[in-house]
Amino acid sequence: MQREEFLTSMRHLAASVSIISAKDSGGKPYAMTASSVTSLSMEPPSILVCVNKSAGIHKALSLGGGLCINILSKHQVDIANLCSSKDQENARFENNDWDNSELPFLKEAQSNIFCKIDQIIEYHTHSIVITKVVKAISVNSFNTLMYADGGYLD
Amino acid sequence: MQREEFLTSMRHLAASVSIISAKDSGGKPYAMTASSVTSLSMEPPSILVCVNKSAGIHKALSLGGGLCINILSKHQVDIANLCSSKDQENARFENNDWDNSELPFLKEAQSNIFCKIDQIIEYHTHSIVITKVVKAISVNSFNTLMYADGGYLD
Repeated sequence: MQREEFLTSMRHLAASVSIISAKDSGGKPYAMTASSVTSLSMEPPSILVCVNKSAGIHKALSLGGGLCINILSKHQVDIANLCSSKDQENARFENNDWDNSELPFLKEAQSNIFCKIDQIIEYHTHSIVITKVVKAISVNSFNTLMYADGGYLD
Repeated sequence: MQREEFLTSMRHLAASVSIISAKDSGGKPYAMTASSVTSLSMEPPSILVCVNKSAGIHKALSLGGGLCINILSKHQVDIANLCSSKDQENARFENNDWDNSELPFLKEAQSNIFCKIDQIIEYHTHSIVITKVVKAISVNSFNTLMYADGGYLD
């Protein structure tokens, strides 16, 4: 199998754009843009997300710890870009987009889904992080930012 | 947490529509519409999909066995509906949409991703099926069918 073959097929896999956010044990906040967020079960309400082990946020993820999945609105392209830029990793919270009072979450997202990490399954370069949903806040109208074919969709 | 709260947030999680297909050990083909398909790693090229244990296809999934992930094009709403209808479970292959010569795959999909099942991880009602990609065939233009907010997106 050619690497290019796989990448081409993955360009056809469209997904919402989310930012996942967490704090480490010292209270330092982390955030990362992710498209590999998938609902898992209704019983219990659960979601999984795949996280590269080299991502900064990975070390802030632990069993029983909190994780917020922020599904982005179309107007949140700037924060999506900021939270996927390695160069700007330390600047991800230097803006007014966040509520950092407890588990950090993005204001004005489509949904903020507050989760508790239930299992972390390692698979080569990535961890599959399985979370139970504790609470979810959503806006009323659907206007989710989506990514496919190498860019954001209109 | 209210069940309704979770469901509302999941309406904001947009995704491609795929049909996964496989054969059991007796050669009987199975197919199921799925939106919980997510790329996992580039090293090795791998994808995961969450499958309800009560789905017919679940019993055809085994370690080392084949699974095809067919990412649908926008014109494939009919087959998406057929492969998500429990009532029509036995009619899913009674059409000309399939190539059944080996591992069944959908003709005219955006991509046909041929996989080998590497791990099956049970989580309550569902199994997380981790697959290594063996081969992928894609059409050139992006025209993926997407689902969110309780319906297909235009």
